Amino acid sequence: MSDSTNLTFRYATREDLPAIVALLADDEKGKTREELADPLPDAYYQAFDAMESQSTDALPNKYLLAILGDDIVGCLQLTLIAGLSRRGQLRAQIEGVRVSSKVRGQKIGEKLITESISISKSLGAVLIQFTTDKTRKDAHRFYERLGFVASHEGMKMALGQMP
Amino acid sequence: MSDSTNLTFRYATREDLPAIVALLADDEKGKTREELADPLPDAYYQAFDAMESQSTDALPNKYLLAILGDDIVGCLQLTLIAGLSRRGQLRAQIEGVRVSSKVRGQKIGEKLITESISISKSLGAVLIQFTTDKTRKDAHRFYERLGFVASHEGMKMALGQMP
Repeated sequence: MSDSTNLTFRYATREDLPAIVALLADDEKGKTREELADPLPDAYYQAFDAMESQSTDALPNKYLLAILGDDIVGCLQLTLIAGLSRRGQLRAQIEGVRVSSKVRGQKIGEKLITESISISKSLGAVLIQFTTDKTRKDAHRFYERLGFVASHEGMKMALGQMP
Repeated sequence: MSDSTNLTFRYATREDLPAIVALLADDEKGKTREELADPLPDAYYQAFDAMESQSTDALPNKYLLAILGDDIVGCLQLTLIAGLSRRGQLRAQIEGVRVSSKVRGQKIGEKLITESISISKSLGAVLIQFTTDKTRKDAHRFYERLGFVASHEGMKMALGQMP
C-alpha cells in the first residue's frame, strides 16, 4: 500500500456503502452496532438516500472519504447546519470518524479531519463540532492536539431500541 | 399572561425572527453573542433562508416555538440528521433552547423539549442529542431529569472570528 503522501479525498457515492460500513464496523464500539452483511442491509441504502435528500452544494450532509491507491482507508460524516444563534452562524459537524486499522500511524485521521475543516471553512462555517463518547480517552487527546476544546457536555437520549 | 396549560407549538416563519432573536439574547451567554437591533441584521434572515433550503418535511431544520396567548415564550432549533452509523440511524439534534425570563417556573422548557422529542420520534429518530456548555450546571440537572445522559464530550473548534 502506498504511503499517505498520496492520500486523496472525495465524497462518497452509493457504491461506496459496503466499504464505509466495513470501516464503521472496524471499531471497538462499531463492531456491535453495525451489520456488515453481503448484501448490505437496505437500511444503509435508505439512510444514504436520506442524507442525499437533505444535502445541497452549499450545505452538504455527506460522507467524506480518504483514498489511498484504490482503497477507501478513512471516512467521516460531514454535516453543515445553518442556524440562528450567534448572529446566524453556520456550523459544521462531524460524526462517524474512522481510519482503517490496516493504515494506522500514517496520520490519515489527522489529514481527514484537516480536510473536513478546510471544506467547512470554504463553505463559510465559523465553528466545527462533534461529540465523542467519554470512554474514548485516546480520541480526546488526538482531537485536543488538533485544536478542539472539550468545552461542552454531549447529552443524548435514546428514543427507542438502538443498535 | 395565561398559564402554561394553554401552551401551543408551531414552527417559526420568517416573520418570527425578531421575537426569536430577542429570546436568544435573553440569556447569560446569548446577550453578548446576539445583535438585537431594529431592523434585525440581515445575517439572521440569510441564516433563516439557509435553514429552509436544507429542510424537508421528513428532515426539518427549523425553529420550534412555544406560544402562550399571542406571545412566543420559548424556542429551540430542531434538526433531523440522516447518517450511516448504527445501521443508518436517524438522529434529532436540538440547539438554541430558550424560555422567556417572563414565564419561568411554568415548566415551559420541559414542555418544549417534550414536544421536540415527540416530533423526533414521529419522524423516525432513534436518538436525540445536543451539547451544552460545561458551565451551565443548572441546565445539566434539568436535562438529566428529563432523561438525557451526559455520555459524551462535546468538542468544538472556532474556524474564525466568532460572535
